[in-house]
Amino acid sequence: MGQHKVTFLPHNRVVSVLEGESLIRAALQAGVHINASCGGEGVCAKCRVQVEKGSVSGGESDRFSDEETERGWHLACQSRIIGDVTVRVPVESAIDRTVFDKRFTPRRTASIRQMDFDSLKERGLFIPPVEKVYLELPTPDAQNNMPDVTRLVEHLKLKGNEHKLELTLAVIRTLPAIMREHDFKVTATLVRPVRDDGKTLITSVQSGDTTGQNYAIALDIGTTTIYAQLIDLTSGKCLGEAGDFNGQISYGEDVISRIIHAEKPEGLETLQKTVVTTINKVIGTIIKQAQVDRQNISTITMAGNTTMTQLLLAIDPRYLRRSPYVPASTLFPPFQASTIGIDLDEHVIALLYPAIASYVGGDIVAGIMGTGLYREEELTLFLDIGTNAEIVIGNKDWLACTACSAGPAFEGGGIEFGMRAAKGAIEDFSIDPVTYEPMLVTIGDVRPKGICGSGLINMVALMFEIGVINNRGKFNREHGTPRIRENKGIWEFVLAWKDDTQIDRDISLSEIDIDNLIRAKGAVYSGCMTLLEEVGLDMGTIERIILAGGFGSYIDLEKAMTIGLLPEIDPDRVIFIGNGSLMGARMSSLTNRIRKDVVEVTKKMTNFELSETPSYMDHYVAAMFIPHTEIEKFPGVKRRMKAWQELRADKP
Amino acid sequence: MGQHKVTFLPHNRVVSVLEGESLIRAALQAGVHINASCGGEGVCAKCRVQVEKGSVSGGESDRFSDEETERGWHLACQSRIIGDVTVRVPVESAIDRTVFDKRFTPRRTASIRQMDFDSLKERGLFIPPVEKVYLELPTPDAQNNMPDVTRLVEHLKLKGNEHKLELTLAVIRTLPAIMREHDFKVTATLVRPVRDDGKTLITSVQSGDTTGQNYAIALDIGTTTIYAQLIDLTSGKCLGEAGDFNGQISYGEDVISRIIHAEKPEGLETLQKTVVTTINKVIGTIIKQAQVDRQNISTITMAGNTTMTQLLLAIDPRYLRRSPYVPASTLFPPFQASTIGIDLDEHVIALLYPAIASYVGGDIVAGIMGTGLYREEELTLFLDIGTNAEIVIGNKDWLACTACSAGPAFEGGGIEFGMRAAKGAIEDFSIDPVTYEPMLVTIGDVRPKGICGSGLINMVALMFEIGVINNRGKFNREHGTPRIRENKGIWEFVLAWKDDTQIDRDISLSEIDIDNLIRAKGAVYSGCMTLLEEVGLDMGTIERIILAGGFGSYIDLEKAMTIGLLPEIDPDRVIFIGNGSLMGARMSSLTNRIRKDVVEVTKKMTNFELSETPSYMDHYVAAMFIPHTEIEKFPGVKRRMKAWQELRADKP
Repeated sequence: MGQHKVTFLPHNRVVSVLEGESLIRAALQAGVHINASCGGEGVCAKCRVQVEKGSVSGGESDRFSDEETERGWHLACQSRIIGDVTVRVPVESAIDRTVFDKRFTPRRTASIRQMDFDSLKERGLFIPPVEKVYLELPTPDAQNNMPDVTRLVEHLKLKGNEHKLELTLAVIRTLPAIMREHDFKVTATLVRPVRDDGKTLITSVQSGDTTGQNYAIALDIGTTTIYAQLIDLTSGKCLGEAGDFNGQISYGEDVISRIIHAEKPEGLETLQKTVVTTINKVIGTIIKQAQVDRQNISTITMAGNTTMTQLLLAIDPRYLRRSPYVPASTLFPPFQASTIGIDLDEHVIALLYPAIASYVGGDIVAGIMGTGLYREEELTLFLDIGTNAEIVIGNKDWLACTACSAGPAFEGGGIEFGMRAAKGAIEDFSIDPVTYEPMLVTIGDVRPKGICGSGLINMVALMFEIGVINNRGKFNREHGTPRIRENKGIWEFVLAWKDDTQIDRDISLSEIDIDNLIRAKGAVYSGCMTLLEEVGLDMGTIERIILAGGFGSYIDLEKAMTIGLLPEIDPDRVIFIGNGSLMGARMSSLTNRIRKDVVEVTKKMTNFELSETPSYMDHYVAAMFIPHTEIEKFPGVKRRMKAWQELRADKP
Repeated sequence: MGQHKVTFLPHNRVVSVLEGESLIRAALQAGVHINASCGGEGVCAKCRVQVEKGSVSGGESDRFSDEETERGWHLACQSRIIGDVTVRVPVESAIDRTVFDKRFTPRRTASIRQMDFDSLKERGLFIPPVEKVYLELPTPDAQNNMPDVTRLVEHLKLKGNEHKLELTLAVIRTLPAIMREHDFKVTATLVRPVRDDGKTLITSVQSGDTTGQNYAIALDIGTTTIYAQLIDLTSGKCLGEAGDFNGQISYGEDVISRIIHAEKPEGLETLQKTVVTTINKVIGTIIKQAQVDRQNISTITMAGNTTMTQLLLAIDPRYLRRSPYVPASTLFPPFQASTIGIDLDEHVIALLYPAIASYVGGDIVAGIMGTGLYREEELTLFLDIGTNAEIVIGNKDWLACTACSAGPAFEGGGIEFGMRAAKGAIEDFSIDPVTYEPMLVTIGDVRPKGICGSGLINMVALMFEIGVINNRGKFNREHGTPRIRENKGIWEFVLAWKDDTQIDRDISLSEIDIDNLIRAKGAVYSGCMTLLEEVGLDMGTIERIILAGGFGSYIDLEKAMTIGLLPEIDPDRVIFIGNGSLMGARMSSLTNRIRKDVVEVTKKMTNFELSETPSYMDHYVAAMFIPHTEIEKFPGVKRRMKAWQELRADKP
């Protein structure tokens, strides 16, 4: 019995294992996580993997459809190695789904601004882009035998709708039967034009009166997660919400690896189908939740970053990652959702947020439109922090934006014990200023498994304030605690001893981890600095900060200022909006005004490429300290450090 | 060996034959024609039929694809009856194709007005709806990294095209690769808007300069035949023309039987696919003829009657044949030809002529637009005569139209020896006024097989003028010629004795045949009378006649006036336009002006339903004579009758 090579995708980790070994043990050896809750009996069927090259013995299951079996799906725990093999681990088998479990959602550190629906109504802007109109048409006779379409259109005009009307062939095909089903009583679905002189499109005609059932789906297409909401267009209420991991994760975690996969033969097609599969799953969930009739969904409003948008539309994204970073398009026409595979009726019109540039996408524009900052006086810094951070600064008069690569630290990546904000993640932290004994708070209140991004910020901030680490992120080797130790040449702080964890290892924070965090926060801060400088302003002029994004929602403002991720500002002037992309998508399903305004916003917004801006590197170097070289800009941090010193001095 | 029932479709003829009999002999027995030129050896493979119910033994052939075999295709000559069976005879196996053979095209009795392309150019109206524009775009760099779409659109605007531009997702998908293929040198295909304030649609972007290759296909979708022309949009020249029988003939000869078939399960789908199959065949032929690159075809302009139009678009036509005769739509939006199965690139935009009513379709509107009568002063009678006759009267100020059922006599139907205008058809006729010996002229100059519509008119007219038949269409039993005889109680005139024919039977014209012709011409004439009366005019006000349609092109004007099909008018004021539908389709590919005008024309044109017009029946009864009750309205006929009398009186 020989050794065989097992390659795991998308990680591209290769291990050599003995013939007869199970795939799940090979994965363990490779450090690849595959969900498996039944201990390998093949009962839970969670450890689904796809054999892409070579073959294994066993692992078949009647849980797989014939098509899945044919495409190489196996249960990893039941599959034995019989030769070299390449295995793809799909997102649902690899990721801890507790992140979508509301019971384990991390605590919010501040209240999140809700969509301002009432004000929309007050201002007379509750005008969904899609409306339904009920018509009782006269029955044809010898004196009045005009065509069905003419009968409909004439009557719509009579009802005061003087817009130019346009029908598709698909709608015309339905008319003869539909109009005669309830004696020429029908409900027409109209897509309002963007401009007053534009054409109104009739997308569907239903028999009888269905005006009371008019729904939209708002969709955020994130690189990692996809969220959808079901919106009642008669009341403006959200009837359901669901999220899931973007299935594309199986082909790479970040946009760059997705683009690289898209460049492979059939890669683009695969990625397009994969994201649509996730979208359809999420849509199915909210439709079930809200118990609405699928045929009464009239529109789907969507937002995603530029790469996600191009992949969704099957537009080759290769030039997004190559200088000079040219997107195929930023504006997209409305289109039938079904044409790209979305499982909604033919008549459902998809509206997709435009992008600004390769790295400032429709998700950011959605946030700008959803918050309304483009209509307001206050000079606002809009931040969406993740692996990439997008920065928009401006107000009703001008808008500037940029994007910078923060690296994966905020999402737990590149941190030895980093993890996503899921059950078992340390999300908050406190430390005894004398004994340096930590207090850990985990998501789900269980023994710790690792550290999520917000936990990381909190612990580094606090450690800095009490002097456990210095402004270069190095541990104070003088503190006499066994928690600060050198391990294989690297200094670290032990957060939890082995026996107190779920992972049977000490969980610690190393200087390398801290350095990664500093680089991440430095990239964001210096991005803001550079953008402000380009428009001739400085940090002091910022009147308001809007934090968007999953990570942004959970950070502790004071701690984020301590590490120098955010400039110091009155915390009351910081607004958390959560998923700005989803919020913007929902807003555009409620008011057609956004479709009119967004074209102006995309024209007005100036994008700066940091790589083309020489001062960026200077600002970056200056930000490689906690909180910053210019500590005087962070009086709050100084004050808190002093308070800790005094507290410590008071203790015996 | 028992007897089995064999049913032939679309004829619906049933015969009972002995087991073991061949299908082709069963067809002979049923009076169903199936082409078979090899005498039943299975070599020519022309006798293709489709077994729809039951089965036969033998008749398989490797000439059929697997799919065809599965769908029941057999060679009739090789198939033996083994039980009750239903067989469909497809059009290509049933019809004499010599009608499409230019060598056997019937002689024209008058020159046909050619499309007035030069005048179009002179008037500055040579503006095809689809234009190509060559662009040399600047290459992107760090200072100019606008999206591909923006780059294209901005440059099109710079080139003076200030129209609003619109792109489809399909075009956006092609851009990243196409723009980079020849260093950002591209040719954009633009569909001009109908109105000046409308949007210009970019349907395609090709790399390099392809402005020299811009083609259109003009298509006439007739109930019986489909004709296409390939038009060079840079020169206006026609590069190829081809025609074929509409494959739908297998499902019924006329529009009513097609509608009935469409009401059966999957009937509509079958008819839609069938006509598209013929269209694709014809398109394939002209593309091959003209040797153009399929991807440089930019548009297809089409016209057909209302039923053909609805079947083409898969719109249920059932209400077209039921009072109050309501079409689904008369105007149709431009659409991608490929979406209905037409084998042209995705970017090809189809423009389809609007209809007026259920029985005045886009083919007639195409004729009106193509001739330009809607722009001219002269009061014109436009006639398209076939099984249905469509009548339009009007000028630039007003237009009225109607349709009447003439029955199939003009196309050789309902006439004992009637046939289509194909090889062997008697198309012209002369008769010795004394001996009554006829002279027959056939298409292709071969021995006669039957009588086509124009031949029928010529012989009835001449026989009336010389007194062989009276004004009620009865033979003068007093003439001592063996050619006038009573046969099974019906009087007839023997045109050709058995030995002189191709069919081994005497070919004759009976009083029943003449009666059918009188009914047909009476329907048309009284339709014209009724329409004129409804607008307060009479036949004398007509300043010009335009004759459209295959049949209309070949009639002898004087003879048509003699039988009272047309009112008497100076023959110089009669214009033959041939296939008006094809002419109109071609014209709309050459000038966008037609798209602007046609909406006005459809609004302006008043349709009269003859069934709702009580005076029609009175006019019809008055027209049941040759030429008409009011013979004084036909002074020319009287003059000619007198001339014949004198000629005969001169003879010994």
